[in-house]
Amino acid sequence: MTTVRTFVQDTAVRGPDNGRYRGEIQPGWDIGGNANGGYMLAIATRAMIDASGRPDPVTVTAHYLRPGGVGPVGVDTEVVKSGKRFATVRANLISLAGDTERPLMSIIGTFGDLDSSVHNDPELVTAAPPELPPFAECTHRMGGSGDTVAPDFSRRVDLRLHPDDSFLDGRKSGKASLRGWFTFPELGTEGTLDPVGLIQATDAFPPTIFNVDLPVAWVPTVELTSHVRARPAPGPLRCVFTTRFVTGGFLEEDGEVWDSTGRLVAQSRQLALLPRSV
Amino acid sequence: MTTVRTFVQDTAVRGPDNGRYRGEIQPGWDIGGNANGGYMLAIATRAMIDASGRPDPVTVTAHYLRPGGVGPVGVDTEVVKSGKRFATVRANLISLAGDTERPLMSIIGTFGDLDSSVHNDPELVTAAPPELPPFAECTHRMGGSGDTVAPDFSRRVDLRLHPDDSFLDGRKSGKASLRGWFTFPELGTEGTLDPVGLIQATDAFPPTIFNVDLPVAWVPTVELTSHVRARPAPGPLRCVFTTRFVTGGFLEEDGEVWDSTGRLVAQSRQLALLPRSV
Repeated sequence: MTTVRTFVQDTAVRGPDNGRYRGEIQPGWDIGGNANGGYMLAIATRAMIDASGRPDPVTVTAHYLRPGGVGPVGVDTEVVKSGKRFATVRANLISLAGDTERPLMSIIGTFGDLDSSVHNDPELVTAAPPELPPFAECTHRMGGSGDTVAPDFSRRVDLRLHPDDSFLDGRKSGKASLRGWFTFPELGTEGTLDPVGLIQATDAFPPTIFNVDLPVAWVPTVELTSHVRARPAPGPLRCVFTTRFVTGGFLEEDGEVWDSTGRLVAQSRQLALLPRSV
Repeated sequence: MTTVRTFVQDTAVRGPDNGRYRGEIQPGWDIGGNANGGYMLAIATRAMIDASGRPDPVTVTAHYLRPGGVGPVGVDTEVVKSGKRFATVRANLISLAGDTERPLMSIIGTFGDLDSSVHNDPELVTAAPPELPPFAECTHRMGGSGDTVAPDFSRRVDLRLHPDDSFLDGRKSGKASLRGWFTFPELGTEGTLDPVGLIQATDAFPPTIFNVDLPVAWVPTVELTSHVRARPAPGPLRCVFTTRFVTGGFLEEDGEVWDSTGRLVAQSRQLALLPRSV
Protein backbone atom coordinates (compact mmCIF):
# COMPACT_ATOMS: atom_id res chain seq x y z
CA MET A 1 0.00 0.00 0.00
CA THR A 2 1.35 3.41 -0.94
CA THR A 3 0.61 6.20 1.49
CA VAL A 4 0.49 9.62 -0.14
CA ARG A 5 2.10 12.03 2.26
CA THR A 6 1.15 15.69 2.15
CA PHE A 7 3.09 18.95 2.51
CA VAL A 8 1.41 19.57 5.86
CA GLN A 9 2.43 16.14 7.13
CA ASP A 10 5.97 16.37 5.82
CA THR A 11 6.59 19.75 7.48
CA ALA A 12 5.03 18.90 10.85
CA VAL A 13 6.91 19.49 14.10
CA ARG A 14 6.37 18.30 17.65
CA GLY A 15 7.34 19.77 20.99
CA PRO A 16 8.75 21.98 22.27
CA ASP A 17 10.91 19.96 24.62
CA ASN A 18 13.37 22.13 26.55
CA GLY A 19 12.80 24.87 23.96
CA ARG A 20 13.48 22.62 20.98
CA TYR A 21 10.92 21.52 18.42
CA ARG A 22 11.60 18.36 16.44
CA GLY A 23 10.79 17.47 12.88
CA GLU A 24 12.11 15.41 10.03
CA ILE A 25 13.44 16.18 6.59
CA GLN A 26 11.42 13.59 4.72
CA PRO A 27 12.56 11.75 1.59
CA GLY A 28 11.44 13.13 -1.75
CA TRP A 29 11.88 16.86 -1.09
CA ASP A 30 15.41 17.01 -2.43
CA ILE A 31 17.12 18.28 -5.52
CA GLY A 32 20.08 16.00 -6.15
CA GLY A 33 20.19 14.89 -2.53
CA ASN A 34 19.87 18.33 -0.91
CA ALA A 35 16.50 19.23 0.56
CA ASN A 36 14.80 22.21 -1.10
CA GLY A 37 15.37 25.35 0.96
CA GLY A 38 11.73 26.43 0.97
CA TYR A 39 10.81 23.02 2.36
CA MET A 40 13.35 23.30 5.21
CA LEU A 41 12.12 26.81 5.92
CA ALA A 42 8.54 25.51 6.05
CA ILE A 43 9.50 23.07 8.83
CA ALA A 44 11.19 25.86 10.79
CA THR A 45 8.27 28.23 10.23
CA ARG A 46 5.79 25.74 11.70
CA ALA A 47 7.83 25.66 14.90
CA MET A 48 8.15 29.45 14.96
CA ILE A 49 4.38 29.88 14.50
CA ASP A 50 3.80 27.67 17.52
CA ALA A 51 6.39 29.53 19.58
CA SER A 52 4.91 32.89 18.58
CA GLY A 53 1.39 31.97 19.69
CA ARG A 54 0.08 33.65 16.52
CA PRO A 55 -1.62 31.92 13.60
CA ASP A 56 0.27 33.39 10.64
CA PRO A 57 3.75 34.26 9.41
CA VAL A 58 3.86 37.89 8.24
CA THR A 59 7.53 38.18 7.26
CA VAL A 60 10.19 35.49 7.48
CA THR A 61 13.88 35.76 6.58
CA ALA A 62 16.15 32.72 6.36
CA HIS A 63 19.91 32.62 5.95
CA TYR A 64 20.92 29.37 4.30
CA LEU A 65 23.96 27.90 6.04
CA ARG A 66 24.38 24.33 4.83
CA PRO A 67 22.59 21.83 2.59
CA GLY A 68 20.22 19.53 4.48
CA GLY A 69 19.70 15.83 3.96
CA VAL A 70 16.99 13.39 4.99
CA GLY A 71 16.80 12.89 8.75
CA PRO A 72 15.83 14.40 12.07
CA VAL A 73 16.04 18.14 12.64
CA GLY A 74 15.57 20.41 15.63
CA VAL A 75 14.21 23.95 15.63
CA ASP A 76 15.52 26.03 18.52
CA THR A 77 13.21 29.03 18.92
CA GLU A 78 13.41 32.21 20.96
CA VAL A 79 10.64 34.79 21.24
CA VAL A 80 12.37 38.19 21.04
CA LYS A 81 9.23 40.25 21.56
CA SER A 82 5.57 39.40 22.01
CA GLY A 83 3.51 42.52 21.41
CA LYS A 84 -0.15 43.35 21.01
CA ARG A 85 -0.32 42.82 17.26
CA PHE A 86 2.84 40.89 16.39
CA ALA A 87 5.38 38.52 17.90
CA THR A 88 8.97 38.31 16.66
CA VAL A 89 10.78 34.99 16.89
CA ARG A 90 14.22 33.83 15.87
CA ALA A 91 15.19 30.25 15.30
CA ASN A 92 17.91 27.93 14.13
CA LEU A 93 17.09 24.83 12.10
CA ILE A 94 19.59 22.17 13.19
CA SER A 95 20.46 18.83 11.69
CA LEU A 96 20.33 16.08 14.30
CA ALA A 97 21.53 13.40 11.88
CA GLY A 98 25.02 12.20 12.71
CA ASP A 99 27.10 12.80 15.81
CA THR A 100 27.39 16.58 15.58
CA GLU A 101 24.51 19.05 15.60
CA ARG A 102 24.93 21.38 12.64
CA PRO A 103 22.85 24.51 11.92
CA LEU A 104 21.29 24.37 8.45
CA MET A 105 19.44 27.66 8.47
CA SER A 106 19.04 30.67 10.77
CA ILE A 107 15.68 32.44 10.65
CA ILE A 108 13.94 35.51 12.01
CA GLY A 109 10.23 36.10 11.59
CA THR A 110 7.36 38.29 12.69
CA PHE A 111 4.01 36.59 13.21
CA GLY A 112 0.46 37.83 13.59
CA ASP A 113 -3.13 37.26 12.54
CA LEU A 114 -3.68 38.02 8.86
CA ASP A 115 -7.45 38.01 9.43
CA SER A 116 -7.05 41.06 11.65
CA SER A 117 -5.92 43.12 8.68
CA VAL A 118 -8.39 45.82 7.86
CA HIS A 119 -9.43 44.97 4.34
CA ASN A 120 -11.37 48.18 3.93
CA ASP A 121 -8.25 50.21 4.56
CA PRO A 122 -7.13 52.21 1.54
CA GLU A 123 -5.50 49.99 -1.06
CA LEU A 124 -3.26 50.76 -4.00
CA VAL A 125 -2.05 48.12 -6.45
CA THR A 126 -0.09 49.03 -9.56
CA ALA A 127 0.66 45.52 -10.79
CA ALA A 128 -1.36 42.57 -12.04
CA PRO A 129 -0.98 38.80 -11.76
CA PRO A 130 1.12 37.14 -14.46
CA GLU A 131 -0.77 35.96 -17.52
CA LEU A 132 -0.84 32.19 -17.70
CA PRO A 133 -2.68 29.59 -19.76
CA PRO A 134 -5.36 27.86 -17.66
CA PHE A 135 -3.98 25.48 -15.04
CA ALA A 136 -5.30 22.37 -16.81
CA GLU A 137 -3.72 23.45 -20.10
CA CYS A 138 -0.28 24.07 -18.61
CA THR A 139 1.43 20.88 -19.61
CA HIS A 140 4.98 21.95 -18.90
CA ARG A 141 4.77 20.44 -15.49
CA MET A 142 8.08 19.83 -13.81
CA GLY A 143 8.16 16.21 -12.73
CA GLY A 144 5.13 15.44 -14.88
CA SER A 145 4.79 12.26 -16.88
CA GLY A 146 6.88 13.58 -19.75
CA ASP A 147 9.74 14.77 -17.56
CA THR A 148 12.23 12.11 -16.64
CA VAL A 149 15.11 14.33 -15.50
CA ALA A 150 13.27 16.45 -12.93
CA PRO A 151 14.45 16.20 -9.32
CA ASP A 152 12.40 14.30 -6.76
CA PHE A 153 11.26 17.61 -5.27
CA SER A 154 9.29 18.52 -8.37
CA ARG A 155 6.97 15.56 -7.75
CA ARG A 156 6.04 16.81 -4.28
CA VAL A 157 4.81 20.10 -5.68
CA ASP A 158 2.53 20.73 -8.65
CA LEU A 159 4.52 23.38 -10.52
CA ARG A 160 3.44 24.21 -14.08
CA LEU A 161 5.57 26.64 -16.06
CA HIS A 162 4.25 29.05 -18.66
CA PRO A 163 5.13 27.39 -22.00
CA ASP A 164 7.01 30.53 -23.13
CA ASP A 165 9.20 30.45 -20.00
CA SER A 166 9.83 26.73 -19.93
CA PHE A 167 13.40 25.85 -20.68
CA LEU A 168 12.43 22.20 -20.25
CA ASP A 169 12.26 21.75 -24.00
CA GLY A 170 15.68 23.34 -24.40
CA ARG A 171 14.42 26.78 -25.50
CA LYS A 172 15.44 29.68 -23.24
CA SER A 173 13.18 32.73 -23.29
CA GLY A 174 16.14 35.11 -23.05
CA LYS A 175 14.57 36.87 -20.06
CA ALA A 176 15.62 36.08 -16.46
CA SER A 177 12.03 35.42 -15.48
CA LEU A 178 9.70 32.49 -14.86
CA ARG A 179 5.91 32.42 -14.66
CA GLY A 180 3.89 29.45 -13.54
CA TRP A 181 1.22 27.83 -11.45
CA PHE A 182 1.95 26.40 -8.01
CA THR A 183 0.06 24.12 -5.67
CA PHE A 184 0.56 20.76 -3.96
CA PRO A 185 -0.60 17.59 -5.76
CA GLU A 186 -2.77 16.56 -2.80
CA LEU A 187 -4.82 19.78 -3.13
CA GLY A 188 -6.06 19.19 -6.67
CA THR A 189 -7.60 22.24 -8.31
CA GLU A 190 -9.84 23.25 -5.39
CA GLY A 191 -7.68 22.89 -2.29
CA THR A 192 -6.32 25.84 -0.32
CA LEU A 193 -2.69 26.40 0.60
CA ASP A 194 -1.94 27.52 4.13
CA PRO A 195 0.43 30.47 4.67
CA VAL A 196 3.37 28.10 5.20
CA GLY A 197 2.58 26.68 1.77
CA LEU A 198 2.93 30.21 0.40
CA ILE A 199 6.43 30.40 1.83
CA GLN A 200 7.21 27.09 0.13
CA ALA A 201 5.90 28.59 -3.13
CA THR A 202 8.44 31.43 -2.90
CA ASP A 203 11.35 28.98 -3.00
CA ALA A 204 10.21 26.18 -5.26
CA PHE A 205 10.71 27.37 -8.83
CA PRO A 206 13.84 26.72 -10.88
CA PRO A 207 16.36 29.60 -11.05
CA THR A 208 15.22 32.50 -13.23
CA ILE A 209 18.57 32.62 -14.94
CA PHE A 210 18.06 29.19 -16.46
CA ASN A 211 16.17 31.23 -19.08
CA VAL A 212 19.19 33.32 -20.12
CA ASP A 213 22.55 32.47 -21.61
CA LEU A 214 24.71 32.40 -18.51
CA PRO A 215 27.07 29.50 -17.88
CA VAL A 216 25.54 28.38 -14.58
CA ALA A 217 24.33 25.06 -13.31
CA TRP A 218 23.20 25.97 -9.81
CA VAL A 219 22.36 29.08 -7.85
CA PRO A 220 22.76 28.61 -4.08
CA THR A 221 20.60 30.87 -1.91
CA VAL A 222 22.29 33.10 0.66
CA GLU A 223 19.12 34.67 2.05
CA LEU A 224 15.38 34.52 1.39
CA THR A 225 12.75 36.91 2.71
CA SER A 226 9.08 36.09 2.22
CA HIS A 227 6.23 38.42 3.09
CA VAL A 228 2.83 36.79 3.49
CA ARG A 229 0.36 39.52 2.57
CA ALA A 230 -2.89 37.56 2.89
CA ARG A 231 -4.28 34.05 3.30
CA PRO A 232 -4.97 32.70 -0.17
CA ALA A 233 -8.36 31.77 -1.62
CA PRO A 234 -8.80 28.14 -2.75
CA GLY A 235 -7.09 26.96 -5.92
CA PRO A 236 -3.64 27.00 -7.51
CA LEU A 237 -1.50 30.13 -7.27
CA ARG A 238 -0.09 32.27 -10.07
CA CYS A 239 3.60 33.00 -9.51
CA VAL A 240 6.25 35.09 -11.20
CA PHE A 241 9.96 35.30 -10.39
CA THR A 242 12.26 37.90 -11.94
CA THR A 243 15.94 38.82 -11.77
CA ARG A 244 17.11 42.27 -12.82
CA PHE A 245 20.65 42.36 -11.47
CA VAL A 246 23.32 39.70 -11.90
CA THR A 247 26.41 41.56 -10.66
CA GLY A 248 29.58 40.86 -8.74
CA GLY A 249 28.77 37.18 -8.36
CA PHE A 250 25.35 37.85 -6.80
CA LEU A 251 21.80 37.97 -8.10
CA GLU A 252 18.39 38.66 -6.62
CA GLU A 253 15.16 36.83 -7.41
CA ASP A 254 11.97 38.77 -6.78
CA GLY A 255 8.82 36.70 -6.41
CA GLU A 256 5.11 37.47 -6.46
CA VAL A 257 2.40 34.96 -5.59
CA TRP A 258 -1.21 35.70 -6.51
CA ASP A 259 -4.33 33.74 -5.56
CA SER A 260 -7.31 32.73 -7.69
CA THR A 261 -9.16 35.95 -6.88
CA GLY A 262 -6.30 38.04 -8.31
CA ARG A 263 -5.01 39.11 -4.91
CA LEU A 264 -1.30 39.35 -4.12
CA VAL A 265 -0.79 36.88 -1.26
CA ALA A 266 3.01 36.73 -0.97
CA GLN A 267 6.04 38.64 -2.09
CA SER A 268 9.62 37.42 -1.83
CA ARG A 269 13.19 38.30 -2.58
CA GLN A 270 16.21 36.10 -2.35
CA LEU A 271 19.90 36.86 -2.66
CA ALA A 272 21.73 34.05 -4.40
CA LEU A 273 25.22 33.30 -5.60
CA LEU A 274 26.30 32.96 -9.17
CA PRO A 275 28.97 30.33 -8.71
CA ARG A 276 32.24 31.18 -10.35
CA SER A 277 32.60 29.87 -13.83
CA VAL A 278 34.85 26.88 -14.19
CA MET B 1 32.96 75.72 19.48
CA THR B 2 30.69 73.53 17.41
CA THR B 3 32.01 70.08 16.65
CA VAL B 4 30.58 68.56 13.49
CA ARG B 5 29.96 64.90 14.19
CA THR B 6 29.95 62.43 11.34
CA PHE B 7 27.84 59.38 10.50
CA VAL B 8 30.84 57.13 11.18
CA GLN B 9 31.36 58.71 14.60
CA ASP B 10 27.70 58.63 15.53
CA THR B 11 27.34 54.92 14.70
CA ALA B 12 30.56 53.75 16.37
CA VAL B 13 30.53 50.88 18.87
CA ARG B 14 33.08 49.66 21.39
CA GLY B 15 33.65 46.25 22.89
CA PRO B 16 32.69 43.52 23.01
CA ASP B 17 32.54 43.09 26.75
CA ASN B 18 31.04 39.75 27.80
CA GLY B 19 29.64 39.44 24.27
CA ARG B 20 27.99 42.85 24.30
CA TYR B 21 29.01 45.81 22.17
CA ARG B 22 28.09 49.29 23.36
CA GLY B 23 27.11 52.37 21.43
CA GLU B 24 24.97 55.42 21.75
CA ILE B 25 21.92 56.74 19.94
CA GLN B 26 23.18 60.29 19.46
CA PRO B 27 20.97 63.38 19.38
CA GLY B 28 19.89 64.70 16.00
CA TRP B 29 19.11 61.39 14.27
CA ASP B 30 15.44 61.38 15.22
CA ILE B 31 12.16 62.04 13.50
CA GLY B 32 9.83 63.51 16.08
CA GLY B 33 11.85 62.06 18.96
CA ASN B 34 12.25 58.53 17.55
CA ALA B 35 15.63 57.62 16.11
CA ASN B 36 15.55 56.78 12.40
CA GLY B 37 15.51 53.00 11.90
CA GLY B 38 18.32 52.95 9.36
CA TYR B 39 20.51 54.82 11.83
CA MET B 40 19.81 52.29 14.61
CA LEU B 41 20.48 49.46 12.18
CA ALA B 42 23.79 51.10 11.24
CA ILE B 43 24.93 50.99 14.88
CA ALA B 44 23.97 47.32 15.14
CA THR B 45 25.61 46.49 11.82
CA ARG B 46 28.95 47.95 12.96
CA ALA B 47 28.91 45.56 15.93
CA MET B 48 27.91 42.63 13.74
CA ILE B 49 30.71 43.36 11.25
CA ASP B 50 33.21 43.24 14.11
CA ALA B 51 31.73 40.02 15.47
CA SER B 52 31.75 38.44 12.00
CA GLY B 53 35.44 39.13 11.42
CA ARG B 54 34.55 40.13 7.83
CA PRO B 55 34.82 43.61 6.35
CA ASP B 56 31.42 43.99 4.68
CA PRO B 57 27.71 43.39 5.23
CA VAL B 58 26.28 41.39 2.32
CA THR B 59 22.66 41.03 3.45
CA VAL B 60 21.12 42.36 6.64
CA THR B 61 17.52 41.97 7.87
CA ALA B 62 16.14 43.92 10.81
CA HIS B 63 12.82 43.48 12.58
CA TYR B 64 11.80 46.76 14.18
CA LEU B 65 10.48 46.13 17.68
CA ARG B 66 10.23 49.49 19.45
CA PRO B 67 11.08 53.15 18.80
CA GLY B 68 14.50 54.15 20.11
CA GLY B 69 15.42 57.38 21.86
CA VAL B 70 18.70 59.12 22.60
CA GLY B 71 20.90 57.17 25.01
CA PRO B 72 23.13 54.15 25.48
CA VAL B 73 22.48 50.93 23.58
CA GLY B 74 23.94 47.44 23.64
CA VAL B 75 24.35 45.07 20.71
CA ASP B 76 24.32 41.42 21.75
CA THR B 77 25.83 39.40 18.92
CA GLU B 78 26.07 35.70 18.19
CA VAL B 79 27.98 34.14 15.31
CA VAL B 80 25.74 31.39 13.96
CA LYS B 81 28.20 30.16 11.35
CA SER B 82 31.65 31.26 10.25
CA GLY B 83 32.41 29.72 6.88
CA LYS B 84 35.07 30.09 4.23
CA ARG B 85 33.40 32.89 2.28
CA PHE B 86 30.71 34.23 4.63
CA ALA B 87 29.87 34.52 8.32
CA THR B 88 26.30 34.72 9.58
CA VAL B 89 25.59 36.70 12.74
CA ARG B 90 22.44 37.49 14.64
CA ALA B 91 22.07 40.35 17.07
CA ASN B 92 19.67 42.29 19.25
CA LEU B 93 19.96 46.05 19.61
CA ILE B 94 18.98 46.83 23.18
CA SER B 95 18.16 50.12 24.86
CA LEU B 96 20.19 50.57 28.06
CA ALA B 97 18.49 53.84 28.94
CA GLY B 98 16.27 53.52 31.98
CA ASP B 99 16.01 50.69 34.46
CA THR B 100 14.87 47.94 32.11
CA GLU B 101 16.76 46.66 29.09
CA ARG B 102 14.41 46.68 26.12
CA PRO B 103 15.14 45.22 22.67
CA LEU B 104 14.67 47.83 19.93
CA MET B 105 15.55 45.72 16.94
CA SER B 106 16.45 42.10 16.15
CA ILE B 107 18.80 41.54 13.24
CA ILE B 108 20.33 38.74 11.19
CA GLY B 109 23.06 39.31 8.67
CA THR B 110 25.57 37.58 6.46
CA PHE B 111 28.98 39.21 6.10
CA GLY B 112 31.87 38.76 3.70
CA ASP B 113 34.42 40.59 1.61
CA LEU B 114 32.83 42.46 -1.31
CA ASP B 115 36.24 42.87 -2.91
CA SER B 116 36.43 39.11 -3.32
CA SER B 117 33.55 39.20 -5.79
CA VAL B 118 34.64 38.19 -9.22
CA HIS B 119 33.85 41.24 -11.28
CA ASN B 120 34.60 39.50 -14.53
CA ASP B 121 31.90 36.95 -13.82
CA PRO B 122 29.01 37.12 -16.26
CA GLU B 123 26.78 40.09 -15.54
CA LEU B 124 23.23 40.91 -16.58
CA VAL B 125 21.50 44.17 -15.72
CA THR B 126 18.07 45.05 -17.08
CA ALA B 127 17.53 48.30 -15.19
CA ALA B 128 19.17 51.72 -15.11
CA PRO B 129 19.77 54.29 -12.39
CA PRO B 130 16.98 56.81 -11.82
CA GLU B 131 17.22 60.01 -13.84
CA LEU B 132 17.95 62.96 -11.61
CA PRO B 133 18.95 66.58 -12.12
CA PRO B 134 22.61 67.11 -11.21
CA PHE B 135 23.30 66.96 -7.46
CA ALA B 136 24.13 70.67 -7.23
CA GLU B 137 20.90 71.62 -8.98
CA CYS B 138 18.68 69.50 -6.74
CA THR B 139 17.39 72.19 -4.43
CA HIS B 140 14.58 70.18 -2.87
CA ARG B 141 16.83 69.22 -0.04
CA MET B 142 15.06 67.96 3.05
CA GLY B 143 16.32 69.96 5.97
CA GLY B 144 17.89 72.53 3.63
CA SER B 145 17.76 76.22 4.29
CA GLY B 146 14.27 76.62 2.86
CA ASP B 147 12.79 73.74 4.86
CA THR B 148 11.72 74.65 8.35
CA VAL B 149 9.49 71.67 9.13
CA ALA B 150 11.93 68.84 8.35
CA PRO B 151 12.85 66.52 11.22
CA ASP B 152 16.29 66.77 12.84
CA PHE B 153 17.31 63.59 11.03
CA SER B 154 17.15 65.27 7.65
CA ARG B 155 20.02 67.57 8.67
CA ARG B 156 22.32 64.61 9.43
CA VAL B 157 21.94 63.29 5.89
CA ASP B 158 22.17 65.15 2.59
CA LEU B 159 19.02 63.93 0.87
CA ARG B 160 17.89 65.77 -2.27
CA LEU B 161 14.61 64.75 -3.86
CA HIS B 162 13.85 64.88 -7.56
CA PRO B 163 11.74 68.02 -8.00
CA ASP B 164 8.95 66.00 -9.66
CA ASP B 165 8.77 63.64 -6.66
CA SER B 166 9.04 66.25 -3.96
CA PHE B 167 5.86 66.66 -1.97
CA LEU B 168 7.65 69.32 0.07
CA ASP B 169 5.95 72.05 -1.91
CA GLY B 170 2.56 70.40 -1.40
CA ARG B 171 2.35 68.77 -4.84
CA LYS B 172 2.06 64.98 -4.83
CA SER B 173 3.30 63.17 -7.94
CA GLY B 174 0.48 60.64 -7.77
CA LYS B 175 2.98 57.75 -7.94
CA ALA B 176 4.12 55.88 -4.82
CA SER B 177 7.74 56.49 -5.70
CA LEU B 178 10.60 58.77 -4.70
CA ARG B 179 13.86 59.48 -6.49
CA GLY B 180 16.72 61.41 -5.01
CA TRP B 181 20.36 61.86 -4.16
CA PHE B 182 21.82 60.62 -0.88
CA THR B 183 25.08 61.25 0.93
CA PHE B 184 26.24 62.59 4.28
CA PRO B 185 26.90 66.33 4.64
CA GLU B 186 30.46 65.70 5.87
CA LEU B 187 31.31 63.91 2.62
CA GLY B 188 30.64 66.83 0.28
CA THR B 189 30.45 65.90 -3.39
CA GLU B 190 33.60 63.77 -3.48
CA GLY B 191 33.49 61.64 -0.32
CA THR B 192 32.77 57.92 -0.34
CA LEU B 193 30.10 56.17 1.72
CA ASP B 194 31.08 52.96 3.44
CA PRO B 195 28.80 49.91 3.13
CA VAL B 196 27.12 50.76 6.45
CA GLY B 197 26.29 54.14 4.95
CA LEU B 198 24.58 52.28 2.10
CA ILE B 199 22.36 50.52 4.62
CA GLN B 200 21.51 53.91 6.11
CA ALA B 201 20.60 55.11 2.60
CA THR B 202 18.04 52.30 2.26
CA ASP B 203 16.05 53.60 5.25
CA ALA B 204 16.43 57.37 5.11
CA PHE B 205 13.91 58.61 2.54
CA PRO B 206 10.38 59.74 3.38
CA PRO B 207 7.63 57.18 2.77
CA THR B 208 6.84 56.61 -0.91
CA ILE B 209 3.14 56.91 -0.25
CA PHE B 210 3.50 60.54 0.76
CA ASN B 211 3.28 61.05 -3.01
CA VAL B 212 -0.18 59.51 -3.38
CA ASP B 213 -3.57 60.39 -1.99
CA LEU B 214 -3.75 58.04 0.97
CA PRO B 215 -4.79 59.33 4.38
CA VAL B 216 -1.59 58.42 6.22
CA ALA B 217 0.76 60.37 8.43
CA TRP B 218 3.32 57.72 9.32
CA VAL B 219 4.40 54.32 8.07
CA PRO B 220 6.11 52.21 10.74
CA THR B 221 8.56 49.61 9.47
CA VAL B 222 8.02 45.97 10.43
CA GLU B 223 11.06 44.57 8.62
CA LEU B 224 13.85 45.86 6.39
CA THR B 225 16.22 43.78 4.30
CA SER B 226 19.19 45.46 2.63
CA HIS B 227 21.53 43.74 0.21
CA VAL B 228 24.90 45.41 -0.28
CA ARG B 229 25.91 44.47 -3.81
CA ALA B 230 29.18 46.41 -4.09
CA ARG B 231 31.26 49.06 -2.34
CA PRO B 232 30.34 52.41 -3.88
CA ALA B 233 32.60 54.70 -5.87
CA PRO B 234 33.12 58.24 -4.48
CA GLY B 235 30.29 60.76 -4.70
CA PRO B 236 26.59 61.02 -3.86
CA LEU B 237 24.30 58.07 -4.58
CA ARG B 238 21.25 57.94 -6.84
CA CYS B 239 18.33 56.29 -5.08
CA VAL B 240 14.81 55.23 -5.98
CA PHE B 241 12.11 53.80 -3.73
CA THR B 242 8.87 52.35 -5.07
CA THR B 243 5.71 50.81 -3.66
CA ARG B 244 3.49 48.64 -5.84
CA PHE B 245 1.23 47.00 -3.28
CA VAL B 246 -0.67 48.70 -0.49
CA THR B 247 -2.97 45.91 0.67
CA GLY B 248 -4.50 44.57 3.87
CA GLY B 249 -2.86 47.25 5.99
CA PHE B 250 0.66 46.48 4.69
CA LEU B 251 2.91 47.92 2.04
CA GLU B 252 6.37 47.18 0.70
CA GLU B 253 9.02 49.73 -0.27
CA ASP B 254 11.60 48.52 -2.77
CA GLY B 255 14.82 50.49 -2.91
CA GLU B 256 17.71 50.70 -5.32
CA VAL B 257 20.94 52.59 -4.63
CA TRP B 258 23.33 53.37 -7.50
CA ASP B 259 26.80 54.88 -7.32
CA SER B 260 28.37 57.59 -9.46
CA THR B 261 29.67 55.04 -11.97
CA GLY B 262 26.12 53.78 -12.64
CA ARG B 263 26.60 50.57 -10.68
CA LEU B 264 23.87 49.13 -8.45
CA VAL B 265 25.43 49.08 -4.98
CA ALA B 266 22.47 48.23 -2.76
CA GLN B 267 18.96 46.88 -3.03
CA SER B 268 16.38 46.91 -0.27
CA ARG B 269 12.83 45.98 0.59
CA GLN B 270 10.90 46.87 3.67
CA LEU B 271 7.51 45.73 4.91
CA ALA B 272 5.68 48.57 6.61
CA LEU B 273 2.31 49.15 8.19
CA LEU B 274 -0.36 51.43 6.89
CA PRO B 275 -1.81 52.58 10.19
CA ARG B 276 -5.56 52.31 10.39
CA SER B 277 -7.38 55.42 9.36
CA VAL B 278 -8.81 57.42 12.22
